[in-house]
Order: sequence, then structure tokens, then C-alpha cells
Amino acid sequence: MEIINRIDETRKFVGEYKRNGALGLVPTMGYLHEGHISLIKKSVEECRHTAVSIFVNPMQFASTEDLAAYPKDEEGDLRKCRDAGVDMVFMPEVGEMYPEGSTVYVDEDVIRRQLCGRDRPGHFRGVLTVVAKLFNIIQPDVAYFGAKDFQQAVLIKRMVRDLDFLLEIKVLPTYREADGLAMSSRNKYLTADERKQAVALNESLKLAEAVFEDGEKDVGKIRNAVYSQVSEAPLGEIVYIEILDAYDLSPIERINRPAVVAMAVRFGRARLIDNTVLGDFLWEN
Amino acid sequence: MEIINRIDETRKFVGEYKRNGALGLVPTMGYLHEGHISLIKKSVEECRHTAVSIFVNPMQFASTEDLAAYPKDEEGDLRKCRDAGVDMVFMPEVGEMYPEGSTVYVDEDVIRRQLCGRDRPGHFRGVLTVVAKLFNIIQPDVAYFGAKDFQQAVLIKRMVRDLDFLLEIKVLPTYREADGLAMSSRNKYLTADERKQAVALNESLKLAEAVFEDGEKDVGKIRNAVYSQVSEAPLGEIVYIEILDAYDLSPIERINRPAVVAMAVRFGRARLIDNTVLGDFLWEN
Repeated sequence: MEIINRIDETRKFVGEYKRNGALGLVPTMGYLHEGHISLIKKSVEECRHTAVSIFVNPMQFASTEDLAAYPKDEEGDLRKCRDAGVDMVFMPEVGEMYPEGSTVYVDEDVIRRQLCGRDRPGHFRGVLTVVAKLFNIIQPDVAYFGAKDFQQAVLIKRMVRDLDFLLEIKVLPTYREADGLAMSSRNKYLTADERKQAVALNESLKLAEAVFEDGEKDVGKIRNAVYSQVSEAPLGEIVYIEILDAYDLSPIERINRPAVVAMAVRFGRARLIDNTVLGDFLWEN
Repeated sequence: MEIINRIDETRKFVGEYKRNGALGLVPTMGYLHEGHISLIKKSVEECRHTAVSIFVNPMQFASTEDLAAYPKDEEGDLRKCRDAGVDMVFMPEVGEMYPEGSTVYVDEDVIRRQLCGRDRPGHFRGVLTVVAKLFNIIQPDVAYFGAKDFQQAVLIKRMVRDLDFLLEIKVLPTYREADGLAMSSRNKYLTADERKQAVALNESLKLAEAVFEDGEKDVGKIRNAVYSQVSEAPLGEIVYIEILDAYDLSPIERINRPAVVAMAVRFGRARLIDNTVLGDFLWEN
């Protein structure tokens, strides 16, 4: 497995990989959990070669956020990548990705204002910019993302379409702990009590699914049910709970086509997100 | 010569071209003049295959600008491309490049505020977005731009660096009429009297070069000399005349490293731009 820190060093391996067949990319911020590993394994299974990037992207963190505290485990990450059959890990320093005087960015002005864009206004500019850079550096044929970051996945798919990147985006289901908590590197921040209560996110999503299956199509009513359920976790502070069109994240009042129920809830230092889609939804559409 | 309107149709030719050797791209808005042809001929000379794009990009025009009036000569353009040895002309409709709901863009927040960015605030977002799209669609190894659009060339080089596009940008000298007027599709808008007076742009740039060669390094003094000279054309309305660092377009007071003298002057319906660089300047740096 190649471990590469410099952009120009990736170029020769990428060229060789692509001559052999499809190249898969799994972009990550490291501290890999089973959710990441499920993406990596899918890429290894489907593609001739797989690259994983590990880069905690400062551009997607506001100055008030947890950039400095973001958990790291370089040794563990490399071992997990090696075990999964990864060909190349690209782990650049910040100065390699953002040399002094970097001023060009990728952004979006509609979808990124919803959900996490409200309390993280510059977040998706950072995400889209770094992902565009990674696509240009690694030139993957397929890139894998997790559905937990629903808005991110919608925006990246939109970027690929709008900027004509020649690759396929695959979004895989959220990986969960045994009790249903969505896997996240930020779960590490949770105290024991917070960890117990954090299951409220997934529980409330299951409630939304049940209410929807029973025939409820009114967004306000479903949202109220979800809100009440999450509110029963006293350590949780709701950042948002929204039900939006699953394809473009536009506001809706009734569920006539697939809708995402998405939420962010703060437990102590951890800002957790989770979501589910009501209705028959295909990422490929 | 292939004439292609659809993005997905370019893909098969691009793949074949790139297997054969270097692919050059000359992005244009059509109504090709000798300046464009000089770029095309350079690409044909240097690259195994050459693609020319012809697309009047609505995103880089403000609603008050000359999008609807922008001159067109499809037949002449195709003949010139054929004569120059072009392999593929990509000329998409607007709906092909910007399908409904296109919301992702590329932008920059420092360099684009100078010069033409002042009176054309959304212009460079449009330029960078369409050029990023063309780079992803055509996947050139080299792309050719003219130095007349100096700020555009600086921004595109910056975009290639900041977003890690894997291609080389070549910027070729401004092509001029016999009397020195920089070639531009917009010269067509000039009346006979305006056409005569429009030579003032280049004359004033030659004055700047002479004053600089005589040892003058003070930006204010050189700018005043240029301003006076342009002001002698009564039909011209100066939009801006600026002298900035040639590499990053930052403001300077003295010329200690290469500086660009850049101007926009309106003659009737035509907003003309021109520039020259004082000092030893290499686009490659």
C-alpha cells in the first residue's frame, strides 16, 4: 500500500491504476470507523484499485468548531486501510492542499443553505472545494460517500453534474452501532450518559418511518412527532429537525415524493447528525 | 472535424484523442478572429489533437450586458477551425451546459475583485465555472488563452493551481490590428469614428512602456501619463486604468517586480480592454 503526502507523487500511481481498470476513491477525515470501512470494502470489491484520502479539511470548519480537537489515529487508520486491501492512502498536510494564497473555491447557493448550512455557513464551500480538489488529484472513476452526511452527498452529486466531473458517485447506507446510533468519528466526544441518550436520533427517525408507513403525509405532523421524541433526551439540544424533498432539499408541506427527515442534535461537545428517507428513494435518480 | 453539441458525445472522442497523445483546448465564445486563430494554430502545432469550444456563456454576462447582441458567425468559425486543423469543435446549447437547477459554481474572492471585477461583479464566477466545466468535459492536457484577457488568464491559472486541475495553461500574446488595436469580437460594435479613436488604448500602453523604460517606477505618475493619453480620445469613456502586480493583481505604489497596466474603455456600445506588462514577466511563474 502506497502512503503518499504530496499531490505530484499521486500522479504516477493514478496514471498506472487507471490504465489497469476502474479507480475508486473514499474521501475521509480519518479516525476510520466501520462506516468508512464499509465504503472502502465496497470500493475494493467494485474497483480494480482503491485510494483512500485522509485529510481533516480546515476549510470546512468554522473557527468556533472542533478542528483542533478532531480525533486522529493515523496508525490505526493505515492498518485498517491495509487490511481492507487499499492500494493508496493520500494523506497530505494542510500546506500541500492549501498553499499560501489559495483563493479559488467551489460553492453552491441553494441546497447548501438548508439543514447544516444554517449553523455551518461556510461548511459546504469547504467540502465542495476539497472534494473537487481530491477528484482532480486522484481522478477516480467512482467515489464513495456515506448517507449519514445526506446534504453533503446531495451537494457532491450536484457538483459532479453541474461541473461535469467524469465519475460516478455512490452513496452507501449509514452504518450504525448495535443500538442504532449512526457511526461518526464525533461519537468519541460523548460522555457515557450522552452516549445512552444519543440513540434518540435514530429512535425518532424510526418513529417517523412508522408514522409515514401508517399513512401520514403531513410534514408538520411527522416533524412534531420526531421533535417530541428527540426532546425526551434531556442532554440533547436540537439544532434542527427538518423534512425536505430528498432530491433537492427544497421545503415541502406534504410528502408526495421521497422526503428526507434530517436532524442535528448537540450532546455536549458532539454535534450529531442523522437522517432517513421516507418513500422510495434512489441516489441514482 | 467532429462538430459536437452534447457533452456525452465528446467523451468517446476525448478518450481516443488522449490515448494518442496530448490534447489541446482553445475555449472561445466564437466569432473567431486572428487572435483566436493564433491560439488554435499554436495548439495544432504543439498537441496531437486540438479541440475548440464555441459557447457564448450566459453566466459571465450581467443582465445589462451584450449577451443577446454578441456577434455570431457559426459557418465562418467552423471553416476557420477546419482550415486550422482542429479535430473537434464543441458547440453546446445553453441548456446542455446549464440544465435547469444548475447551482454549483467556481469562484474566487480576491483577484476577481480588481479591474473588470469592479464593474462586472459576477463575470469571473461565470468564466471560472464554464472553464472548469470545459476542462472536465474535454480533459485537455494544455489549454490556450489570450493575454488580452489578462485578469481572466491570471484567474484561470490560479484555478488550475488551487483546484489541482491536471493540465497546463498557456497564455499567448495579444493579437493586434495593423494600427495596434487589440483584436476582439467586440470591435465589431465600433463605428468608424470610434474605431479610429480606439487605437488610444494601445498608444497609451506604448507610452507607459516608454516612460517605464526611461526609469519611471512610480505607479501614480505612469498611470497619470496613460490616463492623459486615453483622455485625448473624446469618444472614449474610461472605465478603469490600473497598474497592479502582474502575478496576483495586488495594488502597488512602485514597480519593483512585473506590473500590469490594464484598462477598460467604453466606446459607444463596445467595452474594450487592453493591457501590457512592465518588467520581465513570465506566465509560467
